[in-house]
Amino acid sequence: MAKYLEDFREGEIWESGSIVLGEGDIIAFARDYDPQPMHTDADAAASGPFGGLIASGLQVAALSMKLFVEAGGHGGAPIVGIGIDELRWKQAVRPGDTLRTVREVVEVRRSASKPDRGMIRTRVTVLNQREETVMSYYALGQVRARSPVPEGA
Amino acid sequence: MAKYLEDFREGEIWESGSIVLGEGDIIAFARDYDPQPMHTDADAAASGPFGGLIASGLQVAALSMKLFVEAGGHGGAPIVGIGIDELRWKQAVRPGDTLRTVREVVEVRRSASKPDRGMIRTRVTVLNQREETVMSYYALGQVRARSPVPEGA
Repeated sequence: MAKYLEDFREGEIWESGSIVLGEGDIIAFARDYDPQPMHTDADAAASGPFGGLIASGLQVAALSMKLFVEAGGHGGAPIVGIGIDELRWKQAVRPGDTLRTVREVVEVRRSASKPDRGMIRTRVTVLNQREETVMSYYALGQVRARSPVPEGA
Repeated sequence: MAKYLEDFREGEIWESGSIVLGEGDIIAFARDYDPQPMHTDADAAASGPFGGLIASGLQVAALSMKLFVEAGGHGGAPIVGIGIDELRWKQAVRPGDTLRTVREVVEVRRSASKPDRGMIRTRVTVLNQREETVMSYYALGQVRARSPVPEGA
């Protein structure tokens, strides 16, 4: 069921399933989008700053989207991205790591100028199999309102 | 030639080459990382919020990295990402659009606790063939210093 602005509550938490990232996945993404040896060449990466192959940070960001969309997202309502704030990469992601995401709604705000829609701000955390946070960010998204009139108005 | 912390100057501007994003590229990325109909299905997208297929915002972010790395990045020095601030998607990217990026160094700071390295903050703007900004963000990256002692110290 599609979610509308009125269906989101601040403090609401959503947890994804998990995904295992293989060496082939890391290399395939990096060849297309981030062709640096630390992401594409296991031998070269071994003598690099991380002592082995690591995933491109942009792949980790993309995987956090994949986990959300494949789990149903907002139930068929398109996720129209406005932006991302305060993204930080905190731990390297290596071949074989298992990733999952936790999303918490931290702000729900109806547009003053266009009250048929609103903005939700979500805190997204990506965790590995050791429960370490590998990446976190705030996602800003636009969501349609069910009613163009605020509740109680 | 690899660039070190001492080689970066605030105000320095770098411009990438350009890339044309085809419908197949948009669909291939989205199937793997953002499988929403507005990114994967031209027919469904036609009746969606953008009136046609658009690229995943994460693909546009990844392409801004690709353009930088393929043009040589920091000359062989690995680009170790710390984070991204204030990323905003401003225009939809559609099949056939040509994208290029402009990067301006806005801050160069040596680490106080680990003076053999530092942080650079770069303003990244992605433009389309109409010179419209389709995305912008600040990239924070870690860079090695040539000397562990600040110049003039």
